[in-house]
Amino acid sequence: MGSNKSIDTTFSVSWKYRLRFTNDVFGNDTMNSLLQECNPVQLLIVIDRGVYTNNSIFINKLNKWLETLTIKHHGPIVVDGGEYAKNGMVVVEHILEEINKNNYCRKSCVLVIGGGAVLDAVGYASSTAHRGIPIIRMPSTTLAQCDSGVGVKNAVNYFGKKNFIGVFDPPFAVINDFQLLESLNNQHWCSGLSEAVKVALVKDENLFVEIESCSQELVARETSAMESVITKSAKLHLEHITKGGDPFERLDARPLDFGHWSAHKLEQMTGHELTHGEAVSIGLAIDLRCSVGLGLLDDSTATRAISLLQSLGLPTAHVLLQESSLIDGIEEFRQHLGGRLTLLMLKGIADPINVHELSPTIVRQAINELM
Amino acid sequence: MGSNKSIDTTFSVSWKYRLRFTNDVFGNDTMNSLLQECNPVQLLIVIDRGVYTNNSIFINKLNKWLETLTIKHHGPIVVDGGEYAKNGMVVVEHILEEINKNNYCRKSCVLVIGGGAVLDAVGYASSTAHRGIPIIRMPSTTLAQCDSGVGVKNAVNYFGKKNFIGVFDPPFAVINDFQLLESLNNQHWCSGLSEAVKVALVKDENLFVEIESCSQELVARETSAMESVITKSAKLHLEHITKGGDPFERLDARPLDFGHWSAHKLEQMTGHELTHGEAVSIGLAIDLRCSVGLGLLDDSTATRAISLLQSLGLPTAHVLLQESSLIDGIEEFRQHLGGRLTLLMLKGIADPINVHELSPTIVRQAINELM
Repeated sequence: MGSNKSIDTTFSVSWKYRLRFTNDVFGNDTMNSLLQECNPVQLLIVIDRGVYTNNSIFINKLNKWLETLTIKHHGPIVVDGGEYAKNGMVVVEHILEEINKNNYCRKSCVLVIGGGAVLDAVGYASSTAHRGIPIIRMPSTTLAQCDSGVGVKNAVNYFGKKNFIGVFDPPFAVINDFQLLESLNNQHWCSGLSEAVKVALVKDENLFVEIESCSQELVARETSAMESVITKSAKLHLEHITKGGDPFERLDARPLDFGHWSAHKLEQMTGHELTHGEAVSIGLAIDLRCSVGLGLLDDSTATRAISLLQSLGLPTAHVLLQESSLIDGIEEFRQHLGGRLTLLMLKGIADPINVHELSPTIVRQAINELM
Repeated sequence: MGSNKSIDTTFSVSWKYRLRFTNDVFGNDTMNSLLQECNPVQLLIVIDRGVYTNNSIFINKLNKWLETLTIKHHGPIVVDGGEYAKNGMVVVEHILEEINKNNYCRKSCVLVIGGGAVLDAVGYASSTAHRGIPIIRMPSTTLAQCDSGVGVKNAVNYFGKKNFIGVFDPPFAVINDFQLLESLNNQHWCSGLSEAVKVALVKDENLFVEIESCSQELVARETSAMESVITKSAKLHLEHITKGGDPFERLDARPLDFGHWSAHKLEQMTGHELTHGEAVSIGLAIDLRCSVGLGLLDDSTATRAISLLQSLGLPTAHVLLQESSLIDGIEEFRQHLGGRLTLLMLKGIADPINVHELSPTIVRQAINELM
């Protein structure tokens, strides 16, 4: 057995993450200077049907910009949005076909404009075509601008399971253009704020206080209040990924998933009648009450946080909470992560703690208090 | 426009790459100690039908080992091998279904035993399920042990294009078990050596001289000669990835693709009648002659290298070389990489240079000299 040899070697790969906040991306230099840095040989533009149909001002500006664009380009390809976009491979296949048909290579670029599900499906296609074509993401919803659009993950649902197929692959850039939010209805304008409340609860008391102090302005659609909250939420999200020590989520803990075990389950139970933002709001309320039930958090802080969600017009209860299948969400959450159950709970605002058990009794009691 | 803000941040992700060389992996501690380090909750075993059918000694040992394995496991799942395995999504889907059916999570592990195409397809499935389940690769051919099995890439062919869909994702470990080679027929035993000659030509004159001096032993299937050549070739391959500064191939140059523009095209033109190893041997001969035609390499070195390939029983010409479509391989190679054409040529052994143009005249002259 003289032929036994072992080589252990470590190596690193670095990424540059570019996050931009702007108002009217085609009326200033934001897009052009990113494209200059990316220097693609071709640019494929993909857009969420929601934006395409509801935001004619943005689409007119996009079309005018495309007329001046000297880079060879295709699109805008319009794809259906919402959770449908990432259920199975329909949108992914559509984008792969466009990439193939037009001979896009790894020195090309995809620009995707849309809600979180469209970003996810188009991101998965561009991350796997030729082992990765650079992508510029433009999240078009409050939710995606606060949270999911600013990250390193993409995935589609498969076998009826949320995010069953996906990869970690940082985008070339993310552009949060606040003008994209203007065409959202009031429900979608506000519902993504639950993710801003979440990241504030987990990481930043100042942001929590800011959201409290401007909740009326947020509901009244005052843009400066919204821009400040989105900017801070997106930055906290990005800092967690790039400075938190675990960008590709190899460890058990996922602090940004506070409140998400029941949110994912509720979305499934309601057939996505609840938006992700609404489901997260209810999920936060449950885990705030569970934190109290576990003896970690004082009642007044939980009440204060739940009041904030309600003042933003967000739900904190649902008739289906009393169905026994909700509890299955704990095990399903554990399975997706794998290994030991790890749930983040709160001892206070910006004072989180991981727990490895959550009894149905505690959850039921929490739900009773919310109903 | 006070809302314009830019954040540029960089971050890194590290990987540990474990490469093992052994003889009789189940007769020693190699596998068990890797599994102890990985510590998976479940283990899915997938095996190439070629190994399953032709190597009963190995399969018996595998089955005996499985009887002693205390980790919950499934399989061996047997999948068809050869290029078929990575044409489209059939094998990928099969593995995803097994992963889903048995509730594998990111703390599980996949063990795949097979040729390069099976490693590629099963690797793609495990890299995308739950955004990545760790995989241990056991390459079963000379080619895969020398070269493709030891890397960070996996991909499948799609839209009739080689490796159109894939990701960069380092495996948990690679085990080169030399016993796996014993059941190979003489053609497959030798044909992968073209990749060893390639890496020697590009990076290591000592290895080139070693292969020259033991070519008769290699052809006569003397295992110690083969083990030494595979070990050195695999190490050079891994060093290129982990110390070459471009593990995820973002730059234009791909030195390990010496001779591959025509090899890929020839595989396609012959409907994979030529093995990859044979096609690479012919591709090396072409680019050696092209290097002479470009005035870079002296004739005697090219002749010496081509003689070595021939002494290993490898082809250095093919009747289809004179078809005009071969030249299209240059543009197809450029397209897959994207951007500017970059081909490695040689000024001498282990003395490479990148060129950005290769005229059909030079290629035709090279081919004429080989026919």
